[in-house]
Amino acid sequence: MRIGIGYDVHKLVEGRKLIVGGIEIKHNKGLLGHSDADVLIHAIMDSILGALNLGDIGKLFPDTDMAYKDIDSKILLSRVYEIMVSKGYEIGNLDSVVAAEKPKFKDYIEEMEGVIANILKTDISNISIKATTTEKLGFVGRKEGISAEAVVLLKEKN
Amino acid sequence: MRIGIGYDVHKLVEGRKLIVGGIEIKHNKGLLGHSDADVLIHAIMDSILGALNLGDIGKLFPDTDMAYKDIDSKILLSRVYEIMVSKGYEIGNLDSVVAAEKPKFKDYIEEMEGVIANILKTDISNISIKATTTEKLGFVGRKEGISAEAVVLLKEKN
Amino acid sequence: MRIGIGYDVHKLVEGRKLIVGGIEIKHNKGLLGHSDADVLIHAIMDSILGALNLGDIGKLFPDTDMAYKDIDSKILLSRVYEIMVSKGYEIGNLDSVVAAEKPKFKDYIEEMEGVIANILKTDISNISIKATTTEKLGFVGRKEGISAEAVVLLKEKN
Repeated sequence: MRIGIGYDVHKLVEGRKLIVGGIEIKHNKGLLGHSDADVLIHAIMDSILGALNLGDIGKLFPDTDMAYKDIDSKILLSRVYEIMVSKGYEIGNLDSVVAAEKPKFKDYIEEMEGVIANILKTDISNISIKATTTEKLGFVGRKEGISAEAVVLLKEKN
Repeated sequence: MRIGIGYDVHKLVEGRKLIVGGIEIKHNKGLLGHSDADVLIHAIMDSILGALNLGDIGKLFPDTDMAYKDIDSKILLSRVYEIMVSKGYEIGNLDSVVAAEKPKFKDYIEEMEGVIANILKTDISNISIKATTTEKLGFVGRKEGISAEAVVLLKEKN
Repeated sequence: MRIGIGYDVHKLVEGRKLIVGGIEIKHNKGLLGHSDADVLIHAIMDSILGALNLGDIGKLFPDTDMAYKDIDSKILLSRVYEIMVSKGYEIGNLDSVVAAEKPKFKDYIEEMEGVIANILKTDISNISIKATTTEKLGFVGRKEGISAEAVVLLKEKN
């Protein structure tokens, strides 16, 4: 088994859709980034790439490459899945935390877990997403941005 | 084996007792929350629930429920323990970090580890708590709050 | 197998060399600390000590001890390695994230991984270092400091 960790932050701005965990979430702001800025899928991809020791999404999908401008991060996650399989690994289980003061994610969690499990071709019971506020403290608490962190256990496919 | 991660933040305010890791710690401020606001036990519970893919403490113990007002988080942790056992798992090992500028926790760590190991019915060698400052940076460094993070490996009981 | 997590923060100041991952990095500021303030090696050591339930680097190498003044953190890491071996464990794999607005670390990552793998006597494929900004948010985004987080899986030597 191999362990990985991913951490990502994006800024909340007006005039962008809020995409987290592969789905659009109703909010008056969205996350800024070269891609769709899906902070949770980015953290998840980094955790898998880290477990495989293949660098990070900045290395695989440079934000200077116009091919990735506004790209749906689900497409990037499916490429990470293919890389993982080509290296002989599959998801053991994955757990994650999204830190945001607003909006509330609880009504979206199950749908997000389904989307990600589907791309990573694993049972939904192996994909866990949790959400928390930071009690109005720090940049998350001031609603300046959203952070996400993920840990994963990969196991060798036999 | 299954992995989980938990992250929690609470605000430091006057007029509250400081409860971390299940014990009261001498300090001129305490953590604000619906329960006793034990930031470390909250992170630990979330790591276990995440590993089991059972959501988080906000889902299990809603802060809108008066049953949990000012509740001792050790009681909640013992419920999480019972859920874990009912799912057929036990603690492999757990590691955690409390980030606080003040007070110093080092003289309390061993007692905290004993309290938590006792509730989770595991050897004290399987429960690790560490403490750090953030060098006066950020909301932790400004003593506005305390954060805690925990990771856990669960193993199937045989 | 045992899991560990490490988290460390140091302040960026003028007049210090920037040492991260065991190597000197060209920058107009460096990290402040009692030792060389290598934030990444500190997080890595704490993850290993946490997995072994041996406390943290503050306990092993107190910053009140002049023996550790300005010490090269690679020396401390080699001591942590010896402790790990004496307890009968070796590195399964390790993954980490350095959060810094500046400088860019990508050209240094491979060298850092080599240095750390060498000290921990493990294959370089078992040591992963990733870097991220926090999109100008928080103390990292304001370039006040650098944080690092590491997770590790240790396995029993046979």
